[in-house]
Amino acid sequence: MRHVTSILVENKPGVLSRVTGLVSRRGFNIDSLSVAPTEDPNKSRITVVVVADEVAYEQIKKQLNKLVSVYKVSDLTAEAAIERELVLFKVGVEPERRGEVIEIANVFRAKIVNVGHDAITIEATGDADKLTAMEELLRTYQLRQITRTGITAMPRD
Amino acid sequence: MRHVTSILVENKPGVLSRVTGLVSRRGFNIDSLSVAPTEDPNKSRITVVVVADEVAYEQIKKQLNKLVSVYKVSDLTAEAAIERELVLFKVGVEPERRGEVIEIANVFRAKIVNVGHDAITIEATGDADKLTAMEELLRTYQLRQITRTGITAMPRD
Repeated sequence: MRHVTSILVENKPGVLSRVTGLVSRRGFNIDSLSVAPTEDPNKSRITVVVVADEVAYEQIKKQLNKLVSVYKVSDLTAEAAIERELVLFKVGVEPERRGEVIEIANVFRAKIVNVGHDAITIEATGDADKLTAMEELLRTYQLRQITRTGITAMPRD
Repeated sequence: MRHVTSILVENKPGVLSRVTGLVSRRGFNIDSLSVAPTEDPNKSRITVVVVADEVAYEQIKKQLNKLVSVYKVSDLTAEAAIERELVLFKVGVEPERRGEVIEIANVFRAKIVNVGHDAITIEATGDADKLTAMEELLRTYQLRQITRTGITAMPRD
């Protein structure tokens, strides 16, 4: 099962490395991870997505809680959380069909970031389902590059 | 100086941990990092932002290039790159002043994700300057939580 975990940590060198080391030593691949400072610049928040069964996942959470510099581990899988990711798509397309790609961007409420002679760069945000649907449509054209931020998440009120 | 580095790696357990370990062993704090699969699911792209002087940064790049499972290291600081980040702001605000917060969101072309009794959650995207300006304005209210994805970047055509 896919698990979204939010980890509040001290913002200092080595903390991220200890967290990723702990997860990977157990052989789990990190599907996506994002880390950045929070509302308090002394703290960072790591959002990590892993696929793991319940028993293994409980183990990871327990180990994370024991790490120095880890303040709080929240499992955002179970509760209704707001999940968002940002994706940049660079799509190769000849000028005659450019309009089709722009239409797709509009349908998904995405933004055109750059238009070149034979390519368009689009910025899209949303949850995994929406972004996967958009990616599938854009694969009809020449999908030259995708860069994703990985998911960030917040508990819903 | 702030450096944005894009690292194309093999998508398998342990790779992210080696990259973060290498950077933190040298005592650099990672300001933000994001990792997610690319257009080829066997490869992931890590975008990492560190503050380092030129000499130290060249060393990091050299070491990264030597790592197994690292295909390509691109310095996106120097070239004109597209940089984007997604931020979720949870702002505490009484209903009478809710309109003010919604106005700020509209000015920054941000999306309202959730409206609760005494709080609004906003999704904003942009570069560091835009998001910092927005954060400063929202601090006039009660800024309860900020979660950021960290920067993802792509070379401009």
